[in-house]
Amino acid sequence: MTTGTSIIAGREVAGTEGATRAINPATGAAFGPEFSFLSSSQVEEATKAAATAFDTYRDTTPESRSALLDAIAAEIEADAEEIIATAMQETGLPQARLTGEVGRTANQLRLFANVVRQGDFNGVRIDPALPDRTPAPRADIRQRQVPLGPVAVFGASNFPLAFSTAGGDTASALAAGCTVVFKAHNAHPGTGRLVGQAITRAISASDVDPGVFSIVYGRGSEIGQQLASDPRIAAIGFTGSRTAGLSLQDTAAKRRIPIPVYAEMSAINPVFVLPGALAGDTQALAEGFLGSVTGSSGQLCTAPGLIFVPTGEAGDAFIEQVRKSFAEAAGQTMLTPGIAQSWAEGKASVARQQGVEPLASGTVGETENAPEPTLLTTTIANFSANEELGEEVFGAFSLVVRYDSTEELVSATAALEGQLTGTIQLGEGDDEVARALVRELELKVGRILIGGWPTGVEVGHAMVHGGPFPATTNGATTSVGSLAIDRFLRPVAYQSFFEELLPAPLQDSNPWGLNRRIDGTIEGLKK
Amino acid sequence: MTTGTSIIAGREVAGTEGATRAINPATGAAFGPEFSFLSSSQVEEATKAAATAFDTYRDTTPESRSALLDAIAAEIEADAEEIIATAMQETGLPQARLTGEVGRTANQLRLFANVVRQGDFNGVRIDPALPDRTPAPRADIRQRQVPLGPVAVFGASNFPLAFSTAGGDTASALAAGCTVVFKAHNAHPGTGRLVGQAITRAISASDVDPGVFSIVYGRGSEIGQQLASDPRIAAIGFTGSRTAGLSLQDTAAKRRIPIPVYAEMSAINPVFVLPGALAGDTQALAEGFLGSVTGSSGQLCTAPGLIFVPTGEAGDAFIEQVRKSFAEAAGQTMLTPGIAQSWAEGKASVARQQGVEPLASGTVGETENAPEPTLLTTTIANFSANEELGEEVFGAFSLVVRYDSTEELVSATAALEGQLTGTIQLGEGDDEVARALVRELELKVGRILIGGWPTGVEVGHAMVHGGPFPATTNGATTSVGSLAIDRFLRPVAYQSFFEELLPAPLQDSNPWGLNRRIDGTIEGLKK
Repeated sequence: MTTGTSIIAGREVAGTEGATRAINPATGAAFGPEFSFLSSSQVEEATKAAATAFDTYRDTTPESRSALLDAIAAEIEADAEEIIATAMQETGLPQARLTGEVGRTANQLRLFANVVRQGDFNGVRIDPALPDRTPAPRADIRQRQVPLGPVAVFGASNFPLAFSTAGGDTASALAAGCTVVFKAHNAHPGTGRLVGQAITRAISASDVDPGVFSIVYGRGSEIGQQLASDPRIAAIGFTGSRTAGLSLQDTAAKRRIPIPVYAEMSAINPVFVLPGALAGDTQALAEGFLGSVTGSSGQLCTAPGLIFVPTGEAGDAFIEQVRKSFAEAAGQTMLTPGIAQSWAEGKASVARQQGVEPLASGTVGETENAPEPTLLTTTIANFSANEELGEEVFGAFSLVVRYDSTEELVSATAALEGQLTGTIQLGEGDDEVARALVRELELKVGRILIGGWPTGVEVGHAMVHGGPFPATTNGATTSVGSLAIDRFLRPVAYQSFFEELLPAPLQDSNPWGLNRRIDGTIEGLKK
Repeated sequence: MTTGTSIIAGREVAGTEGATRAINPATGAAFGPEFSFLSSSQVEEATKAAATAFDTYRDTTPESRSALLDAIAAEIEADAEEIIATAMQETGLPQARLTGEVGRTANQLRLFANVVRQGDFNGVRIDPALPDRTPAPRADIRQRQVPLGPVAVFGASNFPLAFSTAGGDTASALAAGCTVVFKAHNAHPGTGRLVGQAITRAISASDVDPGVFSIVYGRGSEIGQQLASDPRIAAIGFTGSRTAGLSLQDTAAKRRIPIPVYAEMSAINPVFVLPGALAGDTQALAEGFLGSVTGSSGQLCTAPGLIFVPTGEAGDAFIEQVRKSFAEAAGQTMLTPGIAQSWAEGKASVARQQGVEPLASGTVGETENAPEPTLLTTTIANFSANEELGEEVFGAFSLVVRYDSTEELVSATAALEGQLTGTIQLGEGDDEVARALVRELELKVGRILIGGWPTGVEVGHAMVHGGPFPATTNGATTSVGSLAIDRFLRPVAYQSFFEELLPAPLQDSNPWGLNRRIDGTIEGLKK
């Protein structure tokens, strides 16, 4: 059994400001130890330790930094059994899903270890001196990316591992050379604690300062505001609700020195079923939709909360298949009683809107907090006229919008809010409208899919898990995949340095063996 | 003689809301035609045209886009004589400086034309499908950078060409595939008009939509607020005062959909004279300092407004050389009567602070608005205790801060605000403290120099003209050099696309011949 303390720079610290316990959402019962909440001065110990550690960690070699990331992955895997068992109790998520998430979390850490070893993120650019240039000589100028400083990370309830304590934000910040203060998620405190211990073991076996990582427990909004205001914190990574994300963003913008907030907030991830798709295997399409809406009880950032389907016979037949699939679906435990309640309220709010009709619903699950998967339906005219129909209902819910013409479909797409994803289901004859939709979606989303379903976010180099506001607070980046490291870096130019004073990545001797952009072209590539 | 109209999508539009005339700061007299101010509905015509043009311009080929940038450069050069003559009258800047600035502006446009042709800014990443992967196959995922949309650009008074109508912000936005609404600077309306005409000629001879560029005249704050609020505007590029920059940032953050603001605002660009430097050619050092403080009448973003000099005999001797150099310096015309007045007020405000003494001053110039270059001095203890001593005085002014020990120098550096540059003058025995200063400056500035002077910003691939707040509103970027294009782009992922539906940069056939990152490594480079 774990004990409920924070870990500040490797030390167990019992909080003095009350405590919480985990709740099993399948039963509604509290269980396990109390997790004590830190006072504001205790939280400050963590940010101070992160600032001190940053002073050395930012200069770590690729070997040291990548070894740390690999070691964290190994420590998590070594403790996988207990982590999964605890997370199952705390989140209601099934074992297979959490087993996959341990693998994904470890793979993500190893991806960033490889990114650190590979080194392109250093962004080395060298414009050599041109002493004989007229009318004026050019000085030697070199550029690299440096880490921003200590990062405060806020994990998500719906991914207790991959978007939490040692998730993508933590991994990419550590890879960039930043230190991390992680605000433990009170919906899975024991899982966070186990992962925090795994990180701590990896750090204590390494050569880096223990202040590189702390996990702090506290009341969500208070500790969030404190971390966002702390002058030592240089950036924020967040995954969660729009309300909480915007609150952090607001606080960060009002600081004496504002800091960037990378908040991944909300999306309804439209799916566009084009007419040609209805000539294909519509049963598979209906089942795929069901799986994407209801997987993990619908609690995925990329779950499709909106699907456009043609009116007419073929559309009606497809809707009937969807209806039948959903009727057989049983509710699965949601992450917390609060999230289940929000789902019910959000669904009721959509159902109350003019022109919205019930379409299908499954059955209530056997546990607590396992509501029936639900589909409502409306016309595209209603949808376009009512902004409330575009609001996210987090959980197993989707709105089926029927359209008469592909022209009105393209217009409705142009009016959508920013989204994480947009998915086009197409068949013969759909290429022209698909092309038009892709062009609209390029302005609206972070990832466009042709076929398939948006849930299941691949962790790789080409992934974009982001998108224009309000999907995120910063559409120029991603919170999944190797590009995420750029969020925690900024460029610095070094002019007329001599070799001994240059940081290693910029030295002529290139001790880290980096790819370098010389006068605009990477060495070894054609101009 | 030019007439004073705005140019909206290639059309001359006379404003209906009053007018302004240019003022020759050397005489204080108004001259030339009236430039009429647009109404808000007229300004909206420009943003509408920019939005319409974006719909096609974003898809232009590298050939088309780079040809446009090259053509703008050629049109400006073709009109250089009149542009320089007009700018001299409007800004008081000397012919040689403005001749250089025409060259720099044209080179900058050509740099971005080459960046477009070279194509790495497309950021192509491909993670090929892995159909046989277990436990789940991987879909084909491709990523590229897409342009944000229409950009509102606000130019600087102090660079009527290189940071203005066809300056770095305009060039990088057009290179990225964004369209531009340029707010004409009322301190050089005729220069702006001539450059706007050159751009318009280049566009009308090209194959792009004329809405790609508009230049709009209006009252600074009103038109600024309107452009920052316009829902069609997707990003802002700005160079100017902190007040104006923060006002745009504030408005942009409060929109229903917030947009990024890239504002380059203010800096005092500290210079650190280390003890060893005083064993070298201190006369050259004194003259270099004079040149960097007084060049362009001190009105350069990177002018050194702060210099740290050791106490003791060698420091005193250097200060005496500095004093003599400055005593011989005559004031040069400042850009506007208002800027000259702000300089006088700023200097007086610093002079009033406790422990600040006069050190040197030159003579008042022969024209109007040509105040005497001025140095004040204080101790590092006073400097560290009083934030007002760190405020920018835009113009030929610098504060000489005397320090006793290199330890207190490093501490004072750690307490500085964000800056564009930091410059270290060193000699034998200074390596250790230089290394410590470089590490502090990596947290504080965009560019670090060893020797030389910060003024004279090279336009290349490795340049960073940026830095942490309040030097800019976004320290993760630069407004000079090829990296500036990234400000106007965001990543989009394309999952499971077939070849015909992919945008050209991502097609298997690679029709643009781009460098591509496959599974994390750029093709042709070692892993």
